[in-house]
Amino acid sequence: MESIILKPIAFVHTSRKVIRDDDWGEVLAEIRLVEEIADEAFDGIDMFSHLEIIFHFHQVKAEKIRWGAAYPRGNTDFPKMGILAQRKKSRPNLIGTTMVELIERKERVIVVKGLDAIEGTPVLDIKPVMSEFLPRTTVKQPDWATELMRNYW
Amino acid sequence: MESIILKPIAFVHTSRKVIRDDDWGEVLAEIRLVEEIADEAFDGIDMFSHLEIIFHFHQVKAEKIRWGAAYPRGNTDFPKMGILAQRKKSRPNLIGTTMVELIERKERVIVVKGLDAIEGTPVLDIKPVMSEFLPRTTVKQPDWATELMRNYW
Repeated sequence: MESIILKPIAFVHTSRKVIRDDDWGEVLAEIRLVEEIADEAFDGIDMFSHLEIIFHFHQVKAEKIRWGAAYPRGNTDFPKMGILAQRKKSRPNLIGTTMVELIERKERVIVVKGLDAIEGTPVLDIKPVMSEFLPRTTVKQPDWATELMRNYW
Repeated sequence: MESIILKPIAFVHTSRKVIRDDDWGEVLAEIRLVEEIADEAFDGIDMFSHLEIIFHFHQVKAEKIRWGAAYPRGNTDFPKMGILAQRKKSRPNLIGTTMVELIERKERVIVVKGLDAIEGTPVLDIKPVMSEFLPRTTVKQPDWATELMRNYW
């Protein structure tokens, strides 16, 4: 099957140097564009309050990736869930997506709040959050997901 | 800079064969796992009402990619925006992300509603939408974005 080859467009700089499960909500991070991307790529971005950050879980080793089902956070009190039915980081293609608050743009850098990614994380894309792209019907989720997310932010 | 090499985990099958700007809301699509991914990857997915689909804009040619600013939809009535301040498909890394409604899981296939991707689109990841991952403060966006999205769904 054909491969898709991506290059980081930016990198995350943050005080959070090691992976932790919880308490991401107040973390501030800088996202700095790589040289190959023009300053203008950020033009007008502060018209939006929120951004979607698409990033790469670069510290997860290939042999840790789950291709079938697994317990969320390895916790057997939760149901065993397909890897595509949970947001575990050790997943095929190692992609993370998170909506953050945009605090400030400074030329080639944006400062964001609530990005659950550690220092040095490669960023693959950044998109503005438009309300039309949020769910248009009621979101339902199982109790285990609500429990897992209790202290996440 | 180091490349990140991804493989499609699934492909989109839909009646929408060509790219169109608008009217995606009622479109039903099937997403079929590739052979390398186990059936169990979808286990429990129907506990969730909505999924986030991360996909590759595979029909956009490399020379069309914008690295700086551009008019949304090429419309000069809109402000010229950085490529990371809009959701145009001809963007670095050609990644699309859309939240869809899950209609049904059938073993290795899921049926979803409102996926703005055409027949044959490679899927890079699928994640459940958890309400905690939606914006936790009020979303603000410029008028041009609201105007652009008027007939999208």
